Amino acid sequence: MPTTLKDVALRAGVSIKTVSNVIHGQVYVTDEKRERVEEALKELNYQPNLSARYLRKGRVGVIGLAIPELLNPYFAEVSNTVILAAGRQAYTVLVDTTGGERANERIVINGWRPQLLDGVILSPLALEQEDLQPGLVETPVVLLGERFLDVPHDHVAIDNVAAAYEATYHLLRLGYRRIAAIGLRIDVPDETETSKLRLRGYLQALQEVGISSDKQLITTTEAFYDRESGYSAIRRLFADGVVVDAIFCFNDLMALGAIRALYDMGLRVPEDVAVIGFDDIEEGRYAFPSLTTISPDKKLIGETAVDFLLGRIEGTRDVPPERVYIPFRLIERESTMGRAWGGERRDVLKDHA
Amino acid sequence: MPTTLKDVALRAGVSIKTVSNVIHGQVYVTDEKRERVEEALKELNYQPNLSARYLRKGRVGVIGLAIPELLNPYFAEVSNTVILAAGRQAYTVLVDTTGGERANERIVINGWRPQLLDGVILSPLALEQEDLQPGLVETPVVLLGERFLDVPHDHVAIDNVAAAYEATYHLLRLGYRRIAAIGLRIDVPDETETSKLRLRGYLQALQEVGISSDKQLITTTEAFYDRESGYSAIRRLFADGVVVDAIFCFNDLMALGAIRALYDMGLRVPEDVAVIGFDDIEEGRYAFPSLTTISPDKKLIGETAVDFLLGRIEGTRDVPPERVYIPFRLIERESTMGRAWGGERRDVLKDHA
Repeated sequence: MPTTLKDVALRAGVSIKTVSNVIHGQVYVTDEKRERVEEALKELNYQPNLSARYLRKGRVGVIGLAIPELLNPYFAEVSNTVILAAGRQAYTVLVDTTGGERANERIVINGWRPQLLDGVILSPLALEQEDLQPGLVETPVVLLGERFLDVPHDHVAIDNVAAAYEATYHLLRLGYRRIAAIGLRIDVPDETETSKLRLRGYLQALQEVGISSDKQLITTTEAFYDRESGYSAIRRLFADGVVVDAIFCFNDLMALGAIRALYDMGLRVPEDVAVIGFDDIEEGRYAFPSLTTISPDKKLIGETAVDFLLGRIEGTRDVPPERVYIPFRLIERESTMGRAWGGERRDVLKDHA
Repeated sequence: MPTTLKDVALRAGVSIKTVSNVIHGQVYVTDEKRERVEEALKELNYQPNLSARYLRKGRVGVIGLAIPELLNPYFAEVSNTVILAAGRQAYTVLVDTTGGERANERIVINGWRPQLLDGVILSPLALEQEDLQPGLVETPVVLLGERFLDVPHDHVAIDNVAAAYEATYHLLRLGYRRIAAIGLRIDVPDETETSKLRLRGYLQALQEVGISSDKQLITTTEAFYDRESGYSAIRRLFADGVVVDAIFCFNDLMALGAIRALYDMGLRVPEDVAVIGFDDIEEGRYAFPSLTTISPDKKLIGETAVDFLLGRIEGTRDVPPERVYIPFRLIERESTMGRAWGGERRDVLKDHA
């Protein structure tokens, strides 16, 4: 028979409610009663839940992770690295989904359930500068992602302009010159929003090799970069008669949808059209063809965010808020391997050699 | 300027702490002060967080969803249906991951953080009958998944034996007779554990058409059914020289890993080997070839679990705990479409026609 709260209450000579209050630490209990309860808990070898461990520290041992959605494997993979990193320091992570909605993100950044969570890691999609209400609640917050929000929180990002430049330049280097860019969002005007940074990198690479950009090659999508977005963007592009020899999708899910759309139109990847993604989700490694992509160091993203947040929670980190950039690398796989370095279109690089 | 707690405190003539206590509802505040604070909140159009709405009802408006892991899209998709269903009733869902570990699942089912969550939906992988400690904490719990645990909680399941029978029978009907089964777990002895139910359905279908089972065709895997499990199971099977013309994987992720392994060995799907999965994750619809699978009604799973849980939380559901079976259907896609109905191997069905 496991020890119950009642056993503990009888031993300590207090009410069950008091035992519960001591264990859960949300309500004031006198020191004297608290000591009696804690002694009884120990004598009876009661298995406390996680909260109890954090009683004395005034912490619940739980951090929140607010992501736009669970269906995008990129967020699931980053969440997993956060859960593992937090777990190593005995913190539990509860995942909240914002739906990428500004109102929900605003709630998180302005102090979401401070009595339930010691701190929050937030990956915003729609948040704007003015959404920050300074000083309302003091819950520590760490931001993930690429927006250039000027907020008083630590921020773990990757350099989207540089990453998109590298993806596009890789295609140019292989000889492609009609490169479509899939994923520009027009619902958020902010010029530091992720898709605009990625477009900037794409345009810089074109410019570098002297190709002028063609508006027809740039397609817009909704906030959620899912397989269907990529699929339908490609169908629209081809229905409009746009000539394309390579496609840079702003994430892997759209790239996988794009590849399926190309197959359904009788086109081969990479023989007819090369495709490159962004995120390096596991699915792209097993897909056929496997997907060339930009791989942010997700493990380091999760570990850094957790280190920063726990440092703020436990008071060991007292430097001013920082923005750090996590490295990424390009991983070449089958979806762009149809052409050898250079080939017939090497000429686009001639000024660059 | 947004309204701050300080504004509210000044207007109500109380301390900021008291305002916070009213909003967060965890600490007792006198009725008189509470009314003054609530009036001030209203006058100043303060945007309360969700907790406030549930103050009077003694609920926090948050339910927990404990799943084994985020990396398996099946759990992510079911979680999404839970989040949508709960959201329609103004409940927030926080997702906790158990890692499929019995100790973590035991904590959840025995009442996990009752002061933080109004109830919990748990999808267990390793829980055993004796893990239930009756009556320790009264948090409502709904179980998801297929285990036949005899516990005093509502339970939303699918009929795994019937579903696996249907998957296997589909392959038999198409003329395949060397059908591998991928995914038997040997780490949990319990005969009602999911993989053993699926194996039972597989064996029943073989028996029905008079094919004796071949132990060589049944491969074991770890608890997590990921792409790598499917990939390596197929490599092992072929390394052992086992002759196979079709593969039934106990989930889609393993099936997608299996397809990639077959390609890497120079085999075509479905021309050389047919593959069928289980779960109907979105990835299988866009994969090449697209994946034939068993599709449980995930939307109904999420909605039913939420209905049951909120019914218990709000006291509107007072029938004894029930187990309900959610329907599933077989969805035929490219990965099994290589052969016409019957064909040369129709003979396996002759006793059954």
